[in-house]
Amino acid sequence: MKKIALCPGTYDPMTEGHRDIICRCSKIFDRVIVLVSNNPKKMPLYSLKKRIYFIDKSLKEIKNVEIMSYDGLLIDIAKEKKANVIIKGLRAITDFEYEFQMAQMNKKLAPNIETFFMVSNPRYAYLSSSAVKEVASLNGCIKDLVPKEIEKYIINSFKNNSFD
Amino acid sequence: MKKIALCPGTYDPMTEGHRDIICRCSKIFDRVIVLVSNNPKKMPLYSLKKRIYFIDKSLKEIKNVEIMSYDGLLIDIAKEKKANVIIKGLRAITDFEYEFQMAQMNKKLAPNIETFFMVSNPRYAYLSSSAVKEVASLNGCIKDLVPKEIEKYIINSFKNNSFD
Amino acid sequence: MKKIALCPGTYDPMTEGHRDIICRCSKIFDRVIVLVSNNPKKMPLYSLKKRIYFIDKSLKEIKNVEIMSYDGLLIDIAKEKKANVIIKGLRAITDFEYEFQMAQMNKKLAPNIETFFMVSNPRYAYLSSSAVKEVASLNGCIKDLVPKEIEKYIINSFKNNSFD
Amino acid sequence: MKKIALCPGTYDPMTEGHRDIICRCSKIFDRVIVLVSNNPKKMPLYSLKKRIYFIDKSLKEIKNVEIMSYDGLLIDIAKEKKANVIIKGLRAITDFEYEFQMAQMNKKLAPNIETFFMVSNPRYAYLSSSAVKEVASLNGCIKDLVPKEIEKYIINSFKNNSFD
Amino acid sequence: MKKIALCPGTYDPMTEGHRDIICRCSKIFDRVIVLVSNNPKKMPLYSLKKRIYFIDKSLKEIKNVEIMSYDGLLIDIAKEKKANVIIKGLRAITDFEYEFQMAQMNKKLAPNIETFFMVSNPRYAYLSSSAVKEVASLNGCIKDLVPKEIEKYIINSFKNNSFD
Amino acid sequence: MKKIALCPGTYDPMTEGHRDIICRCSKIFDRVIVLVSNNPKKMPLYSLKKRIYFIDKSLKEIKNVEIMSYDGLLIDIAKEKKANVIIKGLRAITDFEYEFQMAQMNKKLAPNIETFFMVSNPRYAYLSSSAVKEVASLNGCIKDLVPKEIEKYIINSFKNNSFD
Repeated sequence: MKKIALCPGTYDPMTEGHRDIICRCSKIFDRVIVLVSNNPKKMPLYSLKKRIYFIDKSLKEIKNVEIMSYDGLLIDIAKEKKANVIIKGLRAITDFEYEFQMAQMNKKLAPNIETFFMVSNPRYAYLSSSAVKEVASLNGCIKDLVPKEIEKYIINSFKNNSFD
Repeated sequence: MKKIALCPGTYDPMTEGHRDIICRCSKIFDRVIVLVSNNPKKMPLYSLKKRIYFIDKSLKEIKNVEIMSYDGLLIDIAKEKKANVIIKGLRAITDFEYEFQMAQMNKKLAPNIETFFMVSNPRYAYLSSSAVKEVASLNGCIKDLVPKEIEKYIINSFKNNSFD
Repeated sequence: MKKIALCPGTYDPMTEGHRDIICRCSKIFDRVIVLVSNNPKKMPLYSLKKRIYFIDKSLKEIKNVEIMSYDGLLIDIAKEKKANVIIKGLRAITDFEYEFQMAQMNKKLAPNIETFFMVSNPRYAYLSSSAVKEVASLNGCIKDLVPKEIEKYIINSFKNNSFD
Repeated sequence: MKKIALCPGTYDPMTEGHRDIICRCSKIFDRVIVLVSNNPKKMPLYSLKKRIYFIDKSLKEIKNVEIMSYDGLLIDIAKEKKANVIIKGLRAITDFEYEFQMAQMNKKLAPNIETFFMVSNPRYAYLSSSAVKEVASLNGCIKDLVPKEIEKYIINSFKNNSFD
Repeated sequence: MKKIALCPGTYDPMTEGHRDIICRCSKIFDRVIVLVSNNPKKMPLYSLKKRIYFIDKSLKEIKNVEIMSYDGLLIDIAKEKKANVIIKGLRAITDFEYEFQMAQMNKKLAPNIETFFMVSNPRYAYLSSSAVKEVASLNGCIKDLVPKEIEKYIINSFKNNSFD
Repeated sequence: MKKIALCPGTYDPMTEGHRDIICRCSKIFDRVIVLVSNNPKKMPLYSLKKRIYFIDKSLKEIKNVEIMSYDGLLIDIAKEKKANVIIKGLRAITDFEYEFQMAQMNKKLAPNIETFFMVSNPRYAYLSSSAVKEVASLNGCIKDLVPKEIEKYIINSFKNNSFD
């Protein structure tokens, strides 16, 4: 039976760290669904449309990946999509604690869905969407921080102060 | 293509926490290989033969699981067995730090093999092989700490001081 | 001399984890005072009145527990109530760091009052008030997450969008 | 009913950090029992007799403290002594993880006995029995690291290489 | 060649912990520049002018220290000032994780500038600018928490609700 | 006045991570002393002579670095050499906790000597002397794990089982 993995996140915006995790995942599972959170409480800088556009441009060479937005409970989407696994990339201990509790909560709510944690490539260990936004907003260089396919879009979005 | 996962460990002895991880794993991957370390530096209490026997008794109802010992580099076995994934169960932060470094080292040595971390069931969060041995050696109750199929063997091994 | 323990918190809302800690506490100390923070900076979802109501319904069978709100410095209330001990439940490392610093600060401000940390029951390790609100707001099942006496009130509060 | 607290440890040797925790404890509980582990696996430097002697000299002004050795399962002693609480001093996160798991294990084995964690006085946060031994063995100054009542005994024990 | 160290922060307000780090630093490096962040996203309570005033009063006896505000990328100022080192004081693990990632990001953006971490004096381990504000806002005693030169200014600022 | 930094360690054997820290250090301080611990309690695999030889070969292009062994208290050597700073490289949180306590202890014993922590290059975050020995002993590839100048010596030492 085909195995389906979810890669949930806000992706505000996609980083090289995200791409690394998704690519590695796509070699293990039959289908990978990148789930972009539409939860307004996260107060993303980029519009949902733009965030999906960035993911799409960054992953276009990977065949078994789909992109989708969601705004309900993660495990409800997981059940609907018949996913077997939720994938979370970990960079650090503090990530881990929060994700650890979420994984246990999700396990209680949906015992048949597993959460697997993957370790970021050390090269991207310092990388986060907020760091990218911080650096870009202060005109720092974001080369190697985001997929090269979207680098100039991100620079321009800060130049033009337009994130939709 | 079939996906193969390795569950490496010393299993000295098998606990309910180990069984939980292996069972959950066996539902996601086509084949699961429980790899029992034969590294004498770990100075296990139980003989390799006994440790394998305990695993075997505890998992006999799971079809797609095999048990195997190893004494070389984990990623060499992984390549030989054409495994895609190494599975590690995490109970705590300090586990995580060590396993995190091992995962990055293994990624460097074998870029095509992934390490996935799974979170222990909270019920087993306090459980470790050393805790089982500590409790059993002081005549404490080990019910629910080890698979019931091996509980009385472990109690007897301490009574008779025989671990071979 | 009677020993008095404080259990301070926002309780927004009470969870099964809170109840577990308070009950265990009530067996050790002569009086337990559940202190509900009225600090508006915490921006609770539920009104103070409602939060106290939930605690009251959840604990009504415990004789030596009182409920009280406060809005000043915790150690000032502690002195006023002649409390000997502040009790904090810990679920995780990140909790611990913050609470560790608060305990040291409180020790400096009031050397005679001790902070004791208790470990959550593993069954509730993933539980927090925010997790309860997250799940309830997305229509997830909150059975076993909050005391059964208040479960339906919480479900209704989200249905009616009324938290006063 | 009288409340009894246990302060278990190896006390190899007693430090100012240990004394601080025990003294603070003695103000909250009716009786405090300092439990000195006689587990040979810990391979203490000082003999059990000497370790007890050091504790005794350091605590002689505290009325409600007793000293006792033990070599079985901690919770068995706790039940025998009708203790309500096990006290553990925490200096750091790595302490915490291990003690956290022990507390959960003990809770499972003896549901009526609580573990309370206390935070070391920041002045002693860097202090441990091993640090004391390390410093003393290299002729460093141990003033303020151990109770002044035992300072010269410890210095002499290293001079004479006699720990019995 | 002269070595220059930067001590960046929000200093909202200066604490005894900050002063301790800066003083110790001034003995190792030829010049120390205290860099006060003017980033409005941090939403400081005190105006930039007031924060600089507090630092100035607290450090006036140290010859080789200068104070300066900045609002761009830290490493851009570092390059402009020909600084060799960024100094960060650490109190706790969670500090460390964030600062660890920032240090790696800064290393990538400016390979010639090092980040050095210093451990707070244990006496100040519980101290932070937010703790000072919390205590002062609730009329608690802030003696020993902030440099004595600014203690009464801070108390007054809360009395008069004036932070400019 | 010249500033002197110590880089203490067991260096059993030197890794690329060690070299990275020492090189970066040598650009900030006037003199760097690599201090090789001769403490037999650490039970190093390689003889002191061999460990010094490896460091020497790996650092020969750096002018202001000296190598020295020591077997007393670190801060005694530090005083004797008139060192201003002890440098420690950090890879992970568990490192940090231990080093944090050592730094505070050393600060108490020698208030004029500072400990500075540096963050490993992410590329070496998974690297430790034990990992190198583990991999080499199992015939794994150690390229990029140790300085290339000593790579073949280490491989041979395991082939010939000769570490003196």
